[in-house]
Formats: sequence, structure tokens, C-alpha cells
Amino acid sequence: MPAQRIAVIGGTAAGPAAAVAAVRADPRAEVVLFEQGPHISYGACEIPYYVAGTIDEAERLVRLTPGRFEQTRGGTVRTRHRVLALDPARNRLTVEDLATGMVRQERFDKFILAVGARPRRPALDGLEAPNVFAVRTLEEAVDLRAYLDAHPVRHAVVLGGGYVGVEMAEALRARAVRVTILEPGPGVLHAYLDAALRPLVEDALRRHGVVVRRERAVGLDHHPDGMVRSVRTDRGEHIGCQLVLLAMGTEPNTDLAAAARLRLGETGALAVDAQMRTNLPNVWACGDCVEVERVVDRKKVYVPLSPTAFRTARVAGHNAARRGRGLPKQFPGIVGASAVKVFGLEVAAAGLRPDEAREAGFDAFTVTIRHWSHVPLYPEARPVHVQLVVERRRGRLLGAACVGEKGAALRADVLVPLIWDGWTVDRIRDLDLIYTPPLAPALDPLIVAANEAAKTVRP
Amino acid sequence: MPAQRIAVIGGTAAGPAAAVAAVRADPRAEVVLFEQGPHISYGACEIPYYVAGTIDEAERLVRLTPGRFEQTRGGTVRTRHRVLALDPARNRLTVEDLATGMVRQERFDKFILAVGARPRRPALDGLEAPNVFAVRTLEEAVDLRAYLDAHPVRHAVVLGGGYVGVEMAEALRARAVRVTILEPGPGVLHAYLDAALRPLVEDALRRHGVVVRRERAVGLDHHPDGMVRSVRTDRGEHIGCQLVLLAMGTEPNTDLAAAARLRLGETGALAVDAQMRTNLPNVWACGDCVEVERVVDRKKVYVPLSPTAFRTARVAGHNAARRGRGLPKQFPGIVGASAVKVFGLEVAAAGLRPDEAREAGFDAFTVTIRHWSHVPLYPEARPVHVQLVVERRRGRLLGAACVGEKGAALRADVLVPLIWDGWTVDRIRDLDLIYTPPLAPALDPLIVAANEAAKTVRP
Repeated sequence: MPAQRIAVIGGTAAGPAAAVAAVRADPRAEVVLFEQGPHISYGACEIPYYVAGTIDEAERLVRLTPGRFEQTRGGTVRTRHRVLALDPARNRLTVEDLATGMVRQERFDKFILAVGARPRRPALDGLEAPNVFAVRTLEEAVDLRAYLDAHPVRHAVVLGGGYVGVEMAEALRARAVRVTILEPGPGVLHAYLDAALRPLVEDALRRHGVVVRRERAVGLDHHPDGMVRSVRTDRGEHIGCQLVLLAMGTEPNTDLAAAARLRLGETGALAVDAQMRTNLPNVWACGDCVEVERVVDRKKVYVPLSPTAFRTARVAGHNAARRGRGLPKQFPGIVGASAVKVFGLEVAAAGLRPDEAREAGFDAFTVTIRHWSHVPLYPEARPVHVQLVVERRRGRLLGAACVGEKGAALRADVLVPLIWDGWTVDRIRDLDLIYTPPLAPALDPLIVAANEAAKTVRP
Repeated sequence: MPAQRIAVIGGTAAGPAAAVAAVRADPRAEVVLFEQGPHISYGACEIPYYVAGTIDEAERLVRLTPGRFEQTRGGTVRTRHRVLALDPARNRLTVEDLATGMVRQERFDKFILAVGARPRRPALDGLEAPNVFAVRTLEEAVDLRAYLDAHPVRHAVVLGGGYVGVEMAEALRARAVRVTILEPGPGVLHAYLDAALRPLVEDALRRHGVVVRRERAVGLDHHPDGMVRSVRTDRGEHIGCQLVLLAMGTEPNTDLAAAARLRLGETGALAVDAQMRTNLPNVWACGDCVEVERVVDRKKVYVPLSPTAFRTARVAGHNAARRGRGLPKQFPGIVGASAVKVFGLEVAAAGLRPDEAREAGFDAFTVTIRHWSHVPLYPEARPVHVQLVVERRRGRLLGAACVGEKGAALRADVLVPLIWDGWTVDRIRDLDLIYTPPLAPALDPLIVAANEAAKTVRP
């Protein structure tokens, strides 16, 4: 049997992980990783800390250089190569070498799409101005930091109050830039938190000099030199600034896939099964370009987060390369857990938000409690806020959020498997979690929340 | 139906909780709480921090004074009353009023034993010396702190390296007392940790000036004034000291119960069923005097820890008072989770230790990994050590221990329900735990450990 050739398209995180899994499943396979940028295998989540200066060098975000990847992992890496077209039926890839401009076609037996996502861009004119930035890629982050080093930026407007928006607001504050976040939705971090907990984050932002405005950017005012000098909002305000940052979330890169007639799901991302197969027999997909199953309600969701990217990548890489040997790997889906730290405040959420639970058809209620990170008599205890989303009749846990300066995020982790397995709050009350004054109170905040929820369950 | 009279014996933690549950289940019941000391309802776990001076006043450890308890919770409190005998068959209690010396008998319909535990005492002469202390009760702690305030104590010998021993060593160091721990067993915290992780704790102790010696105290040398001036060890050493602290663990107070012909279990603690019933129909028991079921292997164990005390108390109090109304409450057992902080090091364990797993008949192996509290590029990342005890054939998680300066203890909490439900390491690998650089690495230490363990599972 001749060695199979596998193309992996996209090199940030999922692509390299898929390539590694493919080489491991079939060491004889010829695996080629295509990436249009100069870097592969880097920590996109660390970008805000690089911009802030907390991480000194951009190189430190790179886990493996292309050379090192080839040496230690096997496979071939082609950076600065853009895949222009994919023709699975004829096993062909059309690739442009960005260094030379040369375009050529290559033959592969199998294809793994790990093309990721891109920042959502508002419908505004003049986004190409040199002081408008996105920070999806490492190159963009390097550009932004170089710009901040070279230009006197006193005030920045961040479009979007999601996790990238608040992380970047903190990064800019660390560089002594005043920041205004424009968040026209229900409030900052509304993908994580409902109205009961959002004020905690908004207070933290305010205390650290970040202004949050419930306004939408409707236009950019430009200097004659092409720079944006203010952002116009839907309330008719002109917010003067020397920098605009796009942080309105991401959308999957599906152009290549759609042109290749790969099926998209309802979320707009690529549709894949639990083996990360697309609708075409020789194409797999993984990472931030695919939708995945949410285990609580088996609904397909688009949650472009790094752990999911890595896990889907390992499934896709293995299955693409296995050639019928062993069992295919299965991706079991996600609970959906995510966290962000905002000016010392840990914010974490898992499972369904209250509105998502209702949308999914559950008769659900929420409880929100405030307790302590550890015994308050012991120094440095901090409040921990826990919200549980609970199905009313059986008391099944559907989702949760934890917010606090200490011991909040890891407590959300405790609930991840419980949401997965449909634990009831009644069972959660009986968990013997740790207790010791410097680390956890006699009744853990999670138990306090479960006790509170149990009062409302109506069997 | 005349109001029932319920006696609750013991006032530290489980007793008050049982009394509250009894009043709640039957508000008409006359519930009387007997406590031989002057205080009820106090945080025994906070005692080391009171001795250290971290908590300034002993009163702050008291959650409810007797008066406040009676006002807000109902029931009657009799402090400074010692129960001398229990005669369930004739519904009688013999009680001594320690203030007056008066002994009298009282009639009760039901009895709840929450008589707790006492420090294990070594078989040494002269333990009654004024500079030998135990710290089980708040009074003992007040005495110890007063002694430290009044006497120049330069060096203390702590007998026992369990959690009380190491917490008290830290407390004494905070008061500039040099400390030697005598731990003749396999090492400090051996009830939590096996040999792979104990060196981390011993290093932390050493770095903070605590000497740990693998020796047993075989005698005390006394001054003519009655004070202990040195401890003799089984190696023939005489360790000079101005204070001796007993921290050799606890044993259940069963004298009263045994005299009343209540059945003891194999562990030596009171035997109770899941409803916290003893072998006599009108006697319930709870807290540190009972043994409980370990869910992993359904074995009876004696684990005198506060959360279990509270939970068994609520079951006992409710069931004693319910008079056939509703369903009896059931205590589902424990996984067995505990934690201690030693000089900044978080130590937590859950479920079975490797040796316990073998004893329980499991074909088990362990993996021990070292990973990071969060992304190492982000400041203040600290190593987290995770040990998993795993059943070999199916990969079922039986126990775990986590040690590290940051983010270790709460990670043990994540594993508590997984041990409970018998999750396999294969499933744990697929958990989508949170990830964000300041709070958790891309692969959580728990996932790294599960991945490592999965390599050894042999189906």
C-alpha cells in the first residue's frame, strides 16, 4: 500500500494537533501542514498578555517553530502558503506560495480542514485605517504592540465586550491607555453571564478605569491622514480615540469549505459527525471552523475555544490517518466551559445560560448565591458568587457561572462533569468537597448554591 | 400527641446541627443540647489559626453562643453539663451540672449522640504536665495560647505529623517557636499522601524551619517543677523543649455509648445505618463518633471531618424528630475528601490512597504528574502535582491527591464526584475544563494526569 498523503489546512492550534495525531496513527503517512501566516502552533489565548507586556516576546507564544515541528513531530510544514481551493472529488488542493506568488496544484488522498475563525467585522467604512486593529493572529498582535510602542495612544475604543474585549481592555490599561468598550448587547460578557452577575464585571472594569457604554458604533471619523480619530455611536456621540480595536466575536472561516461543497450546519460552521467527518468521504474538519454537539441537549453549537479545538483536532487527525485500523476516535461533545480573568476577577461559566436553557425547551430556574472562597475568619477570603441553572421538576443541573476574585473559576470546573452527567442539585448537596479554613469554607459555595436550588425544585 | 423530648449530647459541631435539624423537623419537640464545656457551635478547624494569632479572639470561632442559639434556632442549651450515663431502654439520661456538682436524671423520648472524638494519647507518663497540650477543644486552644503568651517557649515538640500536627507546627512557627515533629509512621500526612508526594510537604516544612524526625516518643523527662523539659525518642535521643503538643490523631468518644450497649463498628466508632440509627430504636448518632460508608467500596470507615459531621448531623436530627412524617433522610456516604494548607502548599486528597485501594482488593496503579496551575508564560504559575489511583482493567478512578502552591486543592474537588460515580480516566480525558492563561493551562493538570493514566489501563 503506497504511503497516503494527508493535507492539513491551517496551522494555529487545531492544524498542528491534527497533523501530530495523523502522524501518530500512521507514521508512514506523508502529512503536509499549510499555513498562510509565518507562524504555526502558537497560543492565541495568550495574545492579550503579550500586548499588555506581561509576556515580553512574541516568540514565547510560539510552541513549536516549523523547523522544530518537522523535526520532533514528523510531517512537513509550509508556512506562507495559502490554500486557494480544495477539490476533494479530484483529490486536489490549489496552493499559493505567498513568498513567490506561485500557484500550483497538489494531490492528496485526504484533507483535514483546520482553517479556524476570523474576527467579526462591523459594517463600517474605513476599517482599513492603520489605527484599527484586530487581534486574532500573532502577526496582528505584533503589529498592535509595535503600533502602541511607536504612537502616543491615550484613548482606545474597543468594539465588543466579550472575553477578547475585556481582556484587551485590561491589556490596554496595563499600557496606561484609557479604554471605552462599546457593547450594544445586554452587557459585557453576556455570553457567559446573565444580568444577575454581569454587574460584578462591570464594576471591576469601572474601578480600573474602563468605561462601558451600551452603544453601537455606526461610523468612523477619519483624519485627512487616514487615521480614525473618533467613533460615531448610535446615540450620535463622537468618541475621540487614537486606536480602535475590533472584538465583536469570531465567525468560522468557511469560504474554502463552502466552495468545495462541504456542508455547513445551522450555526454557520462546518457540519461534522462525532468522528469529525464532513459530508465528503475524504475530508475531516476540526477546530474553530466546526460546530460541535452540546451534551446537555444534543444541540449543535459553535463555541470556538482552544480546548475544543485541540480535542476535535486529535479526533480528526487520528481518524483521517487510521486506514481502517483500530476503532475510530469519537468526539463526545462539550459541556461548554469557559473562563476569563478581568482585573483580578475570575469569571467562569459552564453548560447552559438561563436564556439558553429556556431556548432549549427546559423548564428551568436560576439561583444566585454569594458565599466565600474560604473561611472568612482566615485572611484574604473573597466573595464567590455562584449561579446555577436548574431544571425545575427533577432538579437537574443544566448550567452554572462562578464569579469572584479567588477560587471561582476552578469551582466551575467541579460542575462541568456534573452538568455532563445530569446530576441533580439534591445529589450535589451531598458531595463531600474539601474543607479547610485557608482553602474552602465548611459549606462550599457550590453546596450553598445547591442547597438554595433544592428549595425550588418541585418534583 | 404530647410534645416529644429529644436529648442531643455534644455541642461542638454535629450536636448543634442535629438540634437545628430536629427542631426544623418537629417545631413542637422539646430539644435539649448538652455540652460539658462552656462553648457550643464553634469552629474546631480554625483552632490552629487562633493559636497562630491569625484569628485574634477565641470568641470569633464561636458561631453561636448558647443564648443566641436558643433565641434563633429553638431548643434549650445546657453548657457545663456532663452526661454521665445513658439508659435508652428506660428513656433516661444521668447528667451532672458541672457548676454545682448536682447529678440528676432526666427523661427523654429520643437521644442523639454527637459526642465527638478525643485526641489519641501516647502511652507516656507525665502527660498531665502543664506544658503538654492537646488542641481538640476551644478551651484547650485558649489555654495553649495563654501559655505561649506567658512563657518563653523557644522549641516545641509535636507528636504526630498528621494534619493537626503540621497545622500546629505552622501556628507555632508563626509565633517564632522552633518546632520538631516526631512522626514515626511512613511520613507526614501519610493519611493523605503516598511516598511520591510526601517529600513536597516535607520540603515545605524544612524550608520553614520545621524539623521532621522519623522517631517515636518513648518518654518525657520532667523538671522537678513538673514541667516536661525533653522528649525521649526510640533512638535514645532527648529532644529538649519547653512545650509538647499531642497531635497523634483522634479516636471516637464511645465510653458513654458502649456503656449503654450501643453497637460499635469494626473501626471502633459507633455503628449506624444510612439513617444514622444505632442498634437501639430511640438512639441516633452523628459526627465524629460514628463510622460512615465509603462509597467507592462500600466499606465502613472512620473519617472524623467537619463536613461529614454536619451532614450526618442533619440526617440524624431530622430522622430522630420526624415521627414518621415524610421520608427519612439518608446519608449517602462519603468519597472521603480532605485538604490542608501547609506553609503555602495546598494538599488535598480524595477517595482511596494507593495502599487503601490495594487493601480494598482493587488491582490498581498510580500515576503522578507535575504540571502547572495555569499557563507558565503568565506570571505566578506554580507547579501542581496530581496523583491518580486507577483501577487497571477498566480505568476507573478510585482516588486522587493534588499538591501545589496554587490551584491544587480545588482541583481535588473536581475529582470527588468522578470518584463517586466511578468515572474512567478515558472519560476524564474528554472533560472540557476551563482554559484561560491566568487561571488554567490549555491542558489542565487533571487532564494531563488522566492522559498519562490512560496509557496504563489494560482492558
